[in-house]
This record gives sequence, structure tokens and C-alpha cells, in this order.
Amino acid sequence: MDFTGPFEVLSRVPGSHFHVVWKDMAPITDIKGLRLLPDTTLEACPQLDVLIVPGGFGQEELMDDDAVISFLRKQAAGSRFVFSVCTGALLCGAAGLLNGVKATTHWSAFHLLPYFGAVPVDRRVVVDGKIVSAAGVTSGIEGALQLAAMLCGDTVAQVIQLSVQYAPEPPFSSGTPATAPSEVFDSARELASLITARRLETAKRFAAKLADLKIDRG
Amino acid sequence: MDFTGPFEVLSRVPGSHFHVVWKDMAPITDIKGLRLLPDTTLEACPQLDVLIVPGGFGQEELMDDDAVISFLRKQAAGSRFVFSVCTGALLCGAAGLLNGVKATTHWSAFHLLPYFGAVPVDRRVVVDGKIVSAAGVTSGIEGALQLAAMLCGDTVAQVIQLSVQYAPEPPFSSGTPATAPSEVFDSARELASLITARRLETAKRFAAKLADLKIDRG
Repeated sequence: MDFTGPFEVLSRVPGSHFHVVWKDMAPITDIKGLRLLPDTTLEACPQLDVLIVPGGFGQEELMDDDAVISFLRKQAAGSRFVFSVCTGALLCGAAGLLNGVKATTHWSAFHLLPYFGAVPVDRRVVVDGKIVSAAGVTSGIEGALQLAAMLCGDTVAQVIQLSVQYAPEPPFSSGTPATAPSEVFDSARELASLITARRLETAKRFAAKLADLKIDRG
Repeated sequence: MDFTGPFEVLSRVPGSHFHVVWKDMAPITDIKGLRLLPDTTLEACPQLDVLIVPGGFGQEELMDDDAVISFLRKQAAGSRFVFSVCTGALLCGAAGLLNGVKATTHWSAFHLLPYFGAVPVDRRVVVDGKIVSAAGVTSGIEGALQLAAMLCGDTVAQVIQLSVQYAPEPPFSSGTPATAPSEVFDSARELASLITARRLETAKRFAAKLADLKIDRG
């Protein structure tokens, strides 16, 4: 939903066109087995107005993927907005897009943002210049609605919100670490613990690179 | 998101497996061009515990599709839960699953529920026996969380809610016809007017069939 939530919202922006981008045209399989088809490649993709960078369990293995990271850097330079959802923010960090930028990400990765030079802001959606970041998974819906408003005005965004009937009533109040019962938080943290440990190692590596760069530049 | 919202939530239920079902294995293209790959066919699909029936603009042309409707009827008979999202409820209605059943659907189709014998309940999620129905698009997230709780208990559902960070803060209060500004409501209703008119004709046809059935049965 990091990707399909924003797709649902932003594909309703009048006149918008979408590309689903990958290295080749083979199906992309998510961690739970859902298969999406890309419609263009990293090389063939035209310059995008809005670059959406979803996260998820697959984000970690893309952190050192030169083809993906240089695509992000190149697209970001020419786009109106870069929109990271969930741990997509870490990919933006790896591409050097968050240095000095206010940003958010999934709560389990929030403490990693400073390693990429980002200024963590604990909100569901953070807008800093052209960089829009949303917190975990479902917050991409709200980030996309805010983007729709910035692109086309509040009325268009409100029409989209009504069309997707976004008047949420969560059945529990466990959507954040602060509001979830402690045993719920412990379980959710435990479920993410392996990937969180890997993400920390990677973040430290990037922080060292960033420091080297700063030293090189004097 | 009628489908991918519930997928995001329910694929996190421990031990769950998913099937994406269609007539053949070719990609399924949504109205905005997003392409998903099915992994089984209507004929080969095993009995499901939870049958998810998403809606959307493509629902209308499936209302008289015997292969799809009889699949729904057969699966529903053996499932623990039938879960309609958005105008998926109309497909359940076409399959005869809503007769005398409390249900909801997207606000633009809510007035059509009685034509299928359903009892409309204006809530975001309605549970009546094994039939769970969610209102428009995004309400599938909440329906799925409630289903997760019914399947595995509140704690599991709360852990999922935290994992997907579902603590919504919509940027506007225009998520329902009652709260949206009137010009926003007019625009959204206008956008749906063609499909709503077609849905009404179809609903009337089904109501006539339902009346014939009742007369036949005396």
C-alpha cells in the first residue's frame, strides 16, 4: 500500500499519467506475493513530475543498488516533487536527497533518519521544499492527498478524498507506538527487529560516507 | 485500493495465504492502468476462508458475468467470511448473497442496496453473520482490521494496525457526503454520475428478478 495507496489518490488527479518503473518489464513481487507489472524501465522512463518512492521489506536490498539509486537522484533533480512513503525515505537518504531536509518515515526506522543527514519530524506527513515524506504504509494516503492539493488545489484534493471515502474510523487506537498497548508495541517491534537491525548497519555505513564527503569538501 | 488495502492488512495475519483470482492468468488492468497478476483461476481456486470482493468501475460489467457470479456464490457457501469492499457489495447482491442482510457500500451506490434485498446500514463497516461489507475504497482497511480481529483476536489486529501505522489524520474533512463542502460533493457525484446511472438500471433489473423468484416460491 506504500505504492497503491498513493496510486489510488494521485491517479485521480485530472490529466495525470502513471509509470510503474523497474529494471525490466518482469513482474515485481511484494513480500507477501502480490505481483505488479511495471510499464517502463529505469532507463526508458521519462522525467516524472512526481517521483514516488515506496518502502517496505524490499527497500533494504536497494540501498546499494547503483541503477536504482542513480535513477532516484536523476529523477529527483528534474521533478517537481519527490514523495517517499514509509521506508522509501531511507532510499531517498541513500540517494543523498535528505541532507539537511526535514523528513519522516515508518516509526521503526525513524531513529535512522539522522544517519542520512535528515532532520526527523515526528508527523504523519512532512513537506520540506520539494521533498514530501509520509510515515508508515497507510500515511501515504494522506501524503498523496496533500500532494494533490499542492498540485491542483484543495478542491480537487477534497473531491478525491470524497471519491475514495476517506473518513477513517480505525477500530483500535493502536496505530502509533505512543497509543498502542505495550504488548502490541513489543510484538510489532519484534516483527520488524531483524530488518531494523540490518537497516541500522546500512544507515551507519551511509553516515560514514557522508562524513567522508564532508571532510573531502573541507 | 479496494483490493490492495485489505491485502496489506490480511496478508499480515499469521499463517495466511492469498490467491488473486481471475478467469485466466493474464494481467488484470484497473481503470487507471495499474496491472496486477492473478495467481489462479476461477476454476482452479481452492475453497477460500475469506472471499474478498472488491468494487470499482469494473464491477458493473461483471454483474451479469455467469462465471464470476457463480464463483462468488460457490465460494461464499463454503467460506467463513465474505468481505465486500466498496461496490463489491453490488456483486455480492447480484450473487444473491445480500437478501435480508445488513450491508454497506460506496456512498454513491448506497441507495441501490435495497434493490438486492439488502438492509442498508450507513456505517463504514457492517458485519452481519458471515457477510462483512465496507463502504467506499479506503474503508476496506478498517473492514480488514475488523476481520483480522474476528479471525485471530484483537491483539493480532492491533499489531497489524501498528505495523501499517494506521493512525489516520486526513488533511480535509471531506471524506463523506455529509462532511464535504457542497461544491466538492457536487463534483464527486458528477464524476460518478454515468456509472451510477448504469448501476441503477442494473439494480432495477435484479430487483425484478428477485420479485419473480419470490412469486415463483409463492
